[in-house]
Amino acid sequence: MRCLTFIMIAAMELGGTKTVVAVGGSNGTLVDEFRFPTTSPQETLMRAVEWFTEKGAPEAIGIAAFGPVRIDPKAADWGTLLATPKPGWNGFSITSFLRDAFPAARITLETDVNAACLAEARIGAAEGLENVAYITIGTGIGAGILCDGRLLHGALHPEFGHIRVPRKKGDDFAGICPFHADCLEGMASGPAIEKRWGKPAQELPVDHPAWETEAWYLAHGIIGLLAISPPQRVVIGGGVSLAEGLHEKTNTLVRELAGGYFPAVNESTYVVPPKLGQQAGIRGALMLTLTNFQPAPHPPRH
Amino acid sequence: MRCLTFIMIAAMELGGTKTVVAVGGSNGTLVDEFRFPTTSPQETLMRAVEWFTEKGAPEAIGIAAFGPVRIDPKAADWGTLLATPKPGWNGFSITSFLRDAFPAARITLETDVNAACLAEARIGAAEGLENVAYITIGTGIGAGILCDGRLLHGALHPEFGHIRVPRKKGDDFAGICPFHADCLEGMASGPAIEKRWGKPAQELPVDHPAWETEAWYLAHGIIGLLAISPPQRVVIGGGVSLAEGLHEKTNTLVRELAGGYFPAVNESTYVVPPKLGQQAGIRGALMLTLTNFQPAPHPPRH
Repeated sequence: MRCLTFIMIAAMELGGTKTVVAVGGSNGTLVDEFRFPTTSPQETLMRAVEWFTEKGAPEAIGIAAFGPVRIDPKAADWGTLLATPKPGWNGFSITSFLRDAFPAARITLETDVNAACLAEARIGAAEGLENVAYITIGTGIGAGILCDGRLLHGALHPEFGHIRVPRKKGDDFAGICPFHADCLEGMASGPAIEKRWGKPAQELPVDHPAWETEAWYLAHGIIGLLAISPPQRVVIGGGVSLAEGLHEKTNTLVRELAGGYFPAVNESTYVVPPKLGQQAGIRGALMLTLTNFQPAPHPPRH
Repeated sequence: MRCLTFIMIAAMELGGTKTVVAVGGSNGTLVDEFRFPTTSPQETLMRAVEWFTEKGAPEAIGIAAFGPVRIDPKAADWGTLLATPKPGWNGFSITSFLRDAFPAARITLETDVNAACLAEARIGAAEGLENVAYITIGTGIGAGILCDGRLLHGALHPEFGHIRVPRKKGDDFAGICPFHADCLEGMASGPAIEKRWGKPAQELPVDHPAWETEAWYLAHGIIGLLAISPPQRVVIGGGVSLAEGLHEKTNTLVRELAGGYFPAVNESTYVVPPKLGQQAGIRGALMLTLTNFQPAPHPPRH
């Protein structure tokens, strides 16, 4: 006689404007999910806890969070949101709140982009590859990076949107990043596109020069990835990436810029759209419970 | 009664112009070393084998090699030099040669810059840190990157010198990289400095504008590292780095460019010179035998 045991795996994707909670499998299979607006920290987390509690008692919780957030499990302030401009969230500990609610649960935390990168690399557009970058372009620009089969952290975590890139010839747009003006995010995020061209990205036609400009900045950022944490494939998602032809334009420019130098680039599918769409983050959060679990040496309890 | 066993640990740093062989400890302690010019592959490797044989039979060999070289131990052509312009070396397998000479030895291979990075991070200028970049500026520019305590590889290995960086205002130097013209290496390597200013770097006085220009390009490359594989400290070595004040100038510019955004940068010792000097590579190669050993699933024998 065989005895099967099921454990409840929960996940939360905490975004700047919306939160997703789910239960499912550590292979990324979604069993049930619930989406609601992100409000105050207490209200948002309480809503997540109540939803999880209805489903049972989670034994593992994977969290994909917006940042900046302390994801180093050895740090005393593990799970705490850092200098975020989002009111009320600065200094709030996501992991403490969940640990108080579910003391027996194993908690794993990653950045939202790292979770999405993991999902695209395991079951999405870069399935089976160990070196993958997932770039998202929306109100900001960020990247999750899988290198040698591990999600990169380093000091805090990557902030890909703030890489400096050469200006496109004749481009005199000042850039909109409050810290750096013309970093990649300052030149190519959704709000940068709108400010530069006077219209939001989704209203710009496919033959608008905006898209050659956008591909230029993205391609130079990708050359940075190739020079530092060489991906075998780059997945670009986020609202702005829905523009028709943007991946192909960027792919062509990356190949031109590579100049035959980076062998990984020699194919037409180097830059691709995501396969999991809006679900990459939450499915990656489920996967964190298996693939990237690290115990917290300093349980950050009140 | 206790029985102590000593094993012989050997290392080789294979450079474009000189080769270093050594025996010592896996903690980086050098017991003996020998330096000689790099000539043909067979002659160079035979000389290394003969020197090792005089010392005994190595049980572990750490290799730090110039590139591009296949460092993925799962690849069929592990240990093979790839598209190098160095005559005779393209397609030569360093690991096959050493495995034939010492079939019982465990062989570990890394890029020369990754080995140097490891040594500086363990016993050098970034001792005890888990997130370190080691940049070398000489005839080319390269970087070894330790991120989350692991040396980064990705697809092949990083080629930091070929990152694209914004031009300094008013700088109309075309750049000398045969692949990309004005990538970091094309703008800031030793030969680039000589071509731009008409004198080799070591003849340019400390107050020459060359050094503000050099710091500009290096600082922008370092912002790329901060955005992708955030180091806690950056060590800059290589011939060009011997210029007085270059590290301080670069440090100041990195802080300015960071704009308060990257918390790792908030100290005056973010960009530092190496502590191990010329010995970083060979001492790192010794350390590879302990810290980074990976067996080769496909012994690449003839």
